[in-house]
Amino acid sequence: MFVLDQRLLQDTLPVGDFPLCRLLLSNDSQYPWFILVPRKADVSEVFQLSDDEQLQLWKETTSLSRTLQQVFEADKMNVAALGNVVSQLHMHVIVRRRGDIAWPAPVWGKHPAVAYTADEALDVIGRLKAALATDLTFVEVANDA
Amino acid sequence: MFVLDQRLLQDTLPVGDFPLCRLLLSNDSQYPWFILVPRKADVSEVFQLSDDEQLQLWKETTSLSRTLQQVFEADKMNVAALGNVVSQLHMHVIVRRRGDIAWPAPVWGKHPAVAYTADEALDVIGRLKAALATDLTFVEVANDA
Repeated sequence: MFVLDQRLLQDTLPVGDFPLCRLLLSNDSQYPWFILVPRKADVSEVFQLSDDEQLQLWKETTSLSRTLQQVFEADKMNVAALGNVVSQLHMHVIVRRRGDIAWPAPVWGKHPAVAYTADEALDVIGRLKAALATDLTFVEVANDA
Repeated sequence: MFVLDQRLLQDTLPVGDFPLCRLLLSNDSQYPWFILVPRKADVSEVFQLSDDEQLQLWKETTSLSRTLQQVFEADKMNVAALGNVVSQLHMHVIVRRRGDIAWPAPVWGKHPAVAYTADEALDVIGRLKAALATDLTFVEVANDA
């Protein structure tokens, strides 16, 4: 059974579900930083998924990346599966802009997270959800999901 | 026409070609750190590739990741397309071990690269090539490729 890792639960806000992955917003207002987590138990590497699941993960990652690039006018998208701290497989999909606080370095470990206010989080999530409105594979999740 | 970015050329050693990507070894002996570069001109984001090319990139990435995990006994594989400095699309596939110098942080920007000696590079590349010997899609490249 899929249970979201405690650290991911703490550090993110839930957005919704794609067919394979839960979509989370990293609670760091310095970047529009999203995380996809396949809803599968005991998986830490992409190649541990079945072939079909791997394909679905890549589809959801690439599609999300394209959408985020457009909605948030990214100069570059950063896509990464690291997992050195949280071993549950999760894919970072991060909007980078030339003016952001860590540019051009990767975001990890550069600056302590600055949590969103409720209004800011609703705005970011709302902009993405508006772009996903025609994506019938996307399902919103309740806030306690 | 595909031309490898100058920075990538400088910082890596050539290993070979998969059907889509050139395989490079990052010239940093602190980690077995490989880089896949699709041999396509003017692409900086995964979603700019055609659907078939995207699929091929993911296949090459996942297959390489699995092979490297086994050959170099990784505790965790790190897979990432960043490109904030070098915009030419390239996929990092990095062997991480709990004892490595940057663990558990990501490798970028943590420690200055320590170049391989010729013997060390031949050893790392040789171990990977031995594992790829049965992979008929892999073709070695000459050192000036």
